[in-house]
Amino acid sequence: MPNNKELKEFDRKAQKLLWAVRDQTIELMNTPLVIDIKSSANDLVTNVDQQNERLMRRKLMEIDPSARIVGEEESFQHQLDQDLSGNTWIIDPIDGTLNFVKQRDHFAIMLALYCDGQPTLGYIMDVMNKHLYHAWREHGAYVDDKQLAKPVDAHLNESLIAINGWQLMKNNFHQQEIARGAAGLRMYGSAGIEIIHVLKGQLGGYTSRLKPWDIAAGRVIAEELGLIVKTIDDQPINVLSSNTVLVATKKVCQDVWQITK
Amino acid sequence: MPNNKELKEFDRKAQKLLWAVRDQTIELMNTPLVIDIKSSANDLVTNVDQQNERLMRRKLMEIDPSARIVGEEESFQHQLDQDLSGNTWIIDPIDGTLNFVKQRDHFAIMLALYCDGQPTLGYIMDVMNKHLYHAWREHGAYVDDKQLAKPVDAHLNESLIAINGWQLMKNNFHQQEIARGAAGLRMYGSAGIEIIHVLKGQLGGYTSRLKPWDIAAGRVIAEELGLIVKTIDDQPINVLSSNTVLVATKKVCQDVWQITK
Repeated sequence: MPNNKELKEFDRKAQKLLWAVRDQTIELMNTPLVIDIKSSANDLVTNVDQQNERLMRRKLMEIDPSARIVGEEESFQHQLDQDLSGNTWIIDPIDGTLNFVKQRDHFAIMLALYCDGQPTLGYIMDVMNKHLYHAWREHGAYVDDKQLAKPVDAHLNESLIAINGWQLMKNNFHQQEIARGAAGLRMYGSAGIEIIHVLKGQLGGYTSRLKPWDIAAGRVIAEELGLIVKTIDDQPINVLSSNTVLVATKKVCQDVWQITK
Repeated sequence: MPNNKELKEFDRKAQKLLWAVRDQTIELMNTPLVIDIKSSANDLVTNVDQQNERLMRRKLMEIDPSARIVGEEESFQHQLDQDLSGNTWIIDPIDGTLNFVKQRDHFAIMLALYCDGQPTLGYIMDVMNKHLYHAWREHGAYVDDKQLAKPVDAHLNESLIAINGWQLMKNNFHQQEIARGAAGLRMYGSAGIEIIHVLKGQLGGYTSRLKPWDIAAGRVIAEELGLIVKTIDDQPINVLSSNTVLVATKKVCQDVWQITK
């Protein structure tokens, strides 16, 4: 477990890295995108995802040479080794690739550090709005240099909520009942952008089936603000596997779990 | 029917009015909101909706004294007189009031002029992003001073699409099948903001049950860009009543109508 002086240094370097990756992203957006298909026609990867992940891996190996690095584009095809001992950095080089390709907006770059399994540092870069959301566990959550206030603990019926569209239609966890219990339903198409809305109190909750890189960073920042990050049916999440995650206020969680349990 | 010189003057004054209403909105957001419930707990009106509509009515009566003025907050309780002869200005003082209240983002101010039923001028102010989308029929569509390009005529399976959440769950017009046929589903909670995404090619289409003030302005701008504005089952819309509207590229319309007919 790194000490506070080491973590402070990791945090400074990680923030600098996120801004450098944002610069690279904006620069690459001025050149033609190279788009490949992963598991299906709507599961895309671009040269920007790949170049961002390479830059992040290279810099992280300098910052923390003995750490394990898990990144979406290198790891998505494999079963992940479940060992969380030591330092594990988790990278999402472009979160919301479909938005990135079709909208050139509403996507994020994310990074997290877990120390012996403990969520420790988290970063979500809202690329087009040029804001870095970040937290260091027990040291506060910030947007850029401004501390984030804890969101109001509102109930489901007072809150807008985001639910992944495919899962809403599948309805395996009563998502349609959850949606009908909320003030309104929203879908932004990027876990990072959706979690930012929960952090700011603009959504009372967000639920989707998420891979490690989709939730690792958001979990650190959300928990630092007193929000809950568990599964939609009230189980702890395993950050190295896929989970149907709920990120929400305490009261929204209680209301959702009454529906799902 | 006003002549081109008169319309040019209307356009200049209407743009100036939209910026003034935006200023008033931003100013009022620094004071406590007064929130009332209309038809249900999630159908809200605030002092800002009401003050914006008052300002817009007052200025429009100066700009075009003999015109009819239809505004959401004065008209929502009545059956609208269906006479579209002469000039009709249609006002949405805050579109996406739930977003305005819960998110303080993702809402719009809209205004349209119909001359003898013909969609003629349209304005959508994206308040928080500080952009005015506007069109004068047969004179081009603009964001601020920059002409908008016609969006690529993409098919449904290549496009992100926005569908109103309640209607997706009701599924009266096979909205779930439409959603499954698209590259992805999005929901932003404001017709104005959703239509802006279609204008920019960020969404291939948007469908929702809409009142006159929700679609009047967007229709002018969308049609000027070669987009289609009809009902979800290929009927012409009546701008003075409620319609389940589809705003989309030609190809998305063809794909949707194959599902709904």
